[in-house]
Amino acid sequence: MKKIIFLLLLPLLSKSQQDDAAFIKKISNEILQNGQAYQQLKYLTKNIGGRLAGSPSYNKAAQWGLETFKKVGADNAFLQECLVPHWIRGKGDYAYLISEKSKNKKALSMTAIGNSIGSKKEITAPLIFIENYADLEAKREEVKGKIVYYNAAFNATNIRTFKSYGETGTYRVNGPSRAAKYGAVGVVIRSLTEGTDNVPHTGTLHYNDSFPTIPAIAIGLEDADFIAANAKNEHWKISMKTHGKMLPDTINHNVIAELKGTEFPDEYITVGGHLDSWDLCEGAHDDGAGVVQTIEILRTFKALGYQPKHTIRFVLFANEENGTRGGAKYAEEAKAKNEKHIFALESDAGGFTPRGFTFGMSKEKLEKVQEWLSLLKPYGTESLEAGGGGADIGALAKLLGTPVAGFIPDSQRYFDIHHATTDTFESVNKRELLLGAVNMAALIYLVDKYGL
Amino acid sequence: MKKIIFLLLLPLLSKSQQDDAAFIKKISNEILQNGQAYQQLKYLTKNIGGRLAGSPSYNKAAQWGLETFKKVGADNAFLQECLVPHWIRGKGDYAYLISEKSKNKKALSMTAIGNSIGSKKEITAPLIFIENYADLEAKREEVKGKIVYYNAAFNATNIRTFKSYGETGTYRVNGPSRAAKYGAVGVVIRSLTEGTDNVPHTGTLHYNDSFPTIPAIAIGLEDADFIAANAKNEHWKISMKTHGKMLPDTINHNVIAELKGTEFPDEYITVGGHLDSWDLCEGAHDDGAGVVQTIEILRTFKALGYQPKHTIRFVLFANEENGTRGGAKYAEEAKAKNEKHIFALESDAGGFTPRGFTFGMSKEKLEKVQEWLSLLKPYGTESLEAGGGGADIGALAKLLGTPVAGFIPDSQRYFDIHHATTDTFESVNKRELLLGAVNMAALIYLVDKYGL
Repeated sequence: MKKIIFLLLLPLLSKSQQDDAAFIKKISNEILQNGQAYQQLKYLTKNIGGRLAGSPSYNKAAQWGLETFKKVGADNAFLQECLVPHWIRGKGDYAYLISEKSKNKKALSMTAIGNSIGSKKEITAPLIFIENYADLEAKREEVKGKIVYYNAAFNATNIRTFKSYGETGTYRVNGPSRAAKYGAVGVVIRSLTEGTDNVPHTGTLHYNDSFPTIPAIAIGLEDADFIAANAKNEHWKISMKTHGKMLPDTINHNVIAELKGTEFPDEYITVGGHLDSWDLCEGAHDDGAGVVQTIEILRTFKALGYQPKHTIRFVLFANEENGTRGGAKYAEEAKAKNEKHIFALESDAGGFTPRGFTFGMSKEKLEKVQEWLSLLKPYGTESLEAGGGGADIGALAKLLGTPVAGFIPDSQRYFDIHHATTDTFESVNKRELLLGAVNMAALIYLVDKYGL
Repeated sequence: MKKIIFLLLLPLLSKSQQDDAAFIKKISNEILQNGQAYQQLKYLTKNIGGRLAGSPSYNKAAQWGLETFKKVGADNAFLQECLVPHWIRGKGDYAYLISEKSKNKKALSMTAIGNSIGSKKEITAPLIFIENYADLEAKREEVKGKIVYYNAAFNATNIRTFKSYGETGTYRVNGPSRAAKYGAVGVVIRSLTEGTDNVPHTGTLHYNDSFPTIPAIAIGLEDADFIAANAKNEHWKISMKTHGKMLPDTINHNVIAELKGTEFPDEYITVGGHLDSWDLCEGAHDDGAGVVQTIEILRTFKALGYQPKHTIRFVLFANEENGTRGGAKYAEEAKAKNEKHIFALESDAGGFTPRGFTFGMSKEKLEKVQEWLSLLKPYGTESLEAGGGGADIGALAKLLGTPVAGFIPDSQRYFDIHHATTDTFESVNKRELLLGAVNMAALIYLVDKYGL
């Protein structure tokens, strides 16, 4: 009997794999020929633009997302309310480097770090050059009354640039409070990038309540290199003024669409990106790309008449950049309703050419997923590895134990434009963007078909 | 005895693999930290610019190449003379689409196809819309006295864009003579690209001596889409004037540097790219990238004190674009001198993020190479497949039977800028360019160490 089953199963499996390859090819053809993601990204970036949590343009983006979901054929589309922080940058920020020798003033290419509190009036104080936290600790007696300049640079030898971001991100996030602890009156960081220009990159910080909240800015790499090259022989003051303000929390919305499951309507697969972006850029790669890829997958499934077994949720999350409150709300509500979430996938690493996915799930589940590699390989996925999912679906993993995955496009260009004015529609390549949606849709299809 | 050898060999092999991994990491660190390729590319593209065979700027580029090879420490650097075609574009080319109904004139975004002969005076003739060669054959009686418009478009569903280029390239290369055969007086093609702008793309054609040489141009995709969208309801004339001229052959030079082999000085490994570019662009990806990667590998081997077993030749080939005479000359001279060439590698697919290599060699040799995959994988190489080498090393393969390889970066963005004014320095990402050199240098190192 065993032998017979074995003989029967082999051709069945093979036929099934052929079916999968054929359906994934259909997905790919549909997206590459008829994809609307690129045009949608143009609208989102050019007609709506930067859309930080709490801003009027976030609300415009949410309305656009809801309408677009309906237009491409969602079974159901709705807004999910959540409270978000409401930071505003204000206007007229500046910073100068003033040579103590020559008294020459050099305007710095700068941006206030997100969530930072403005200086109110101009601050002028000596710059103290700090390589890293060890250096800060060594010089802690000298910090009082000064503006700390953190020079921590990306390690160019890392092949994956997210590793470099992981290593230096703490200077932006925690650096201000760590400097305030020793009496610093302001913080300047080298922007978290390896780009070849002088454009400053913003991003969020977290103040530690135990220490004063001091103003904090990021400067462009040419200015940072100038400081680093001359720090041994020069002494400077920095004059800076910033206008950041944290207003009371306000209401934003996650934007959610559904395709109802035919077999397991009460089991959910989530795919999403975050709809908010930093205020100073168009948020094309971060994370307009993830947003329009998410919509594209829904459009494609409808266009192909695909009826999923599980209910697929397409989610545009609010407030990833400076609070992650959208993702938290989504998971809390799922928990409160006792929903069963079998898988969640996020695209939040840019609209670049696909290279693979990382997975936060058990070894057994990962091994099951890895059997699909040959089906995804023709479309650019070269690895299915253990790793994280994404900031917005982290709460699902934590609260509900949901297996999560992150889409991993090529990372070489991401930090050139990340959180900077250069994160524009023009920096996105149409085919790279669409191929991301192809690989994501294929993975969702396989998870829906075979479960996890 | 067998057992003892087995036990001895295992750790040896493992040690050797560890050594290889460590040395390749050194290569990578050296290139990513100290690489000069990006700055060199800036000089080549901005200070020298377009450098078509026969042009004064090609000679400037050759001098720059020779000096740069010497600067980075070549054991030996020299020029190798070769005769090249000498095509000049002339000035004042234009083309208009004239509606037969409204008589409205629409200026077309156009470029003369390389090697094409100018119209001398303005030609005005009815446009005949041709989808492909089958369509041309079907309509051959209607072609006489008309300007053939070939609408053959890239197939968006191809994942690798070189496949699309392979499928449609013939309309640029052979389309003019095939239309002239039936009496066409001019040819217009849809540019060989899938870009999202209206920039026209040049490239070479080959006239068939049996038919008249008629002028030929390429137009931007927005104009092409306009024609295609209205071809059923509209009739047009085209007015065009072009000024291309083929002058007598002239002398250019391949630029060659060597690192002398310590064990097999008379056995050669070649690595190269082509120094010429189309006249209308900076030739940054095509093939400034291959040029500076080639120089970077030499610089890196010298910086690391690597003494190769075989003599490594670093070659900047002349005249790939409209004649491939540089590659032909290099192979002819190698044959005349009875040189032994064990391997040749070319980078001529752009300075994009690495994805692998293709190989033109025996199955046995390819299998040997494929064992190195795990050593290259950390740097972006995901596949080592059978396939071609490159246009410039094709003659080596043909005349000497040399095993050849082509560096394969990601292809999604290549044809957006290929042979167009948009192939600029700014379209190249520094880390992507350098990572290409890392993977190429690692492959050269492995071939040098283990032979083929």
